[in-house]
Amino acid sequence: MASVTTACVCLIGNEILSGRTQDQNLSYLGKKLNECGIMLREARVIPDIPEAIIKTINDVRASYDYVFTTGGIGPTHDDITSQCIADAFGVPLVRDPEADRLLRDYYGAERTNDARMKMADIPQGASMIANPVSMAPGFVIDNVYVLAGVPSICQAMMDGIAADLKGGQPMRSLAFDVAKAEGDIADLLTRLQSEHEAVEIGVYPRFSKGRLTCHVVLRCCDEAELDQVFEKITQFIDVGDISAVTSD
Amino acid sequence: MASVTTACVCLIGNEILSGRTQDQNLSYLGKKLNECGIMLREARVIPDIPEAIIKTINDVRASYDYVFTTGGIGPTHDDITSQCIADAFGVPLVRDPEADRLLRDYYGAERTNDARMKMADIPQGASMIANPVSMAPGFVIDNVYVLAGVPSICQAMMDGIAADLKGGQPMRSLAFDVAKAEGDIADLLTRLQSEHEAVEIGVYPRFSKGRLTCHVVLRCCDEAELDQVFEKITQFIDVGDISAVTSD
Repeated sequence: MASVTTACVCLIGNEILSGRTQDQNLSYLGKKLNECGIMLREARVIPDIPEAIIKTINDVRASYDYVFTTGGIGPTHDDITSQCIADAFGVPLVRDPEADRLLRDYYGAERTNDARMKMADIPQGASMIANPVSMAPGFVIDNVYVLAGVPSICQAMMDGIAADLKGGQPMRSLAFDVAKAEGDIADLLTRLQSEHEAVEIGVYPRFSKGRLTCHVVLRCCDEAELDQVFEKITQFIDVGDISAVTSD
Repeated sequence: MASVTTACVCLIGNEILSGRTQDQNLSYLGKKLNECGIMLREARVIPDIPEAIIKTINDVRASYDYVFTTGGIGPTHDDITSQCIADAFGVPLVRDPEADRLLRDYYGAERTNDARMKMADIPQGASMIANPVSMAPGFVIDNVYVLAGVPSICQAMMDGIAADLKGGQPMRSLAFDVAKAEGDIADLLTRLQSEHEAVEIGVYPRFSKGRLTCHVVLRCCDEAELDQVFEKITQFIDVGDISAVTSD
């Protein structure tokens, strides 16, 4: 079996932990990574505390093939991600000439100030990640990709780098609703799971029209085995009870 | 300064990492913990892989005062949280007599089966957490609180246990919009932050009516110091540029 390429996402920001901001980046990154054949194996949400960021980055960059961070690369005092990544790698922050030029062009002489130009500083040895929305770049150093927190910018940055990421086979999936409660199909699915270890069978309860039903998700790199498991399920669950089959 | 009571939330489930399911529990738990005077310092999203769950739980329960998990306590083969928590503590799963009775009553003789009764098994030494929605309980063992993943059940469980959690002073906050871009008020806020280290000053960019504005959040346990910082801000930023002040 081919080895799996893995990733960890670190969402940096007090506002997510306080419950004020609902993160919108994780699910986008998870889907995009899967398209690249990279398994998102963990995500961590961490506060704007330098020691926490540095320790987390050093932990996860040693454990996963890829690390993606979001947040903390803007112009204000609470934007400390770039400095923390530099500290995690033991290198200084340096002004990137290309980012310097882009930001001066974007803001013009009147709006350019020290706080904004701070966004042109990236760790020594890092390469810029383009920001087509508002110019202030992200960057990549070794296996750590540093992206913005604003969802539209985070997504644009990820779209820009996706082609360069090296993964394996993407997971295929089949998902469908079953008009039965989880507990009614648990035994069947346990047996199928043991017969098809390569297929990840997930079962999620749903409340629909006052009735408890469930949503089943089959995931596997091998489409043929996926179809085989679905075929077996239809032998045991009335087809009338299965609806909304999707593959994505 | 009083020591801070800390917490970590672990969201368990492949469906969050794959991007299929948008988590709705983290922000609820973060807000609720703050009401209890407990600082949510980290969250981790981890897959349905026993080694990952066991290692994560053992890491975080040693590092934080409280740990809350969501997900993986249902009746199907992919619900492995209870077993993993038992393994993390080195104890067996045992049938809880009260949970056994509740589940048999709830399902009745016809719908009771082995898969459903698995939900009455909790780690030896754990205490049940009531589930007012669908009876299958969560549990607490030492400083680890195991909650359901379905948002309505997770929230009901949290509401039920909140009174028993022991925290300190809750953070007070003042939040408002400023009709200026982040980069225009960065210097002012940097100075205020250095003058008031106890106040957490967060700045978040917003796109509003085609203009870049920002949202400022001040957080502190001491309401007087919070007001002092806000007062200073109004001396330097035109009051007409500040709107929608909220405290929650």
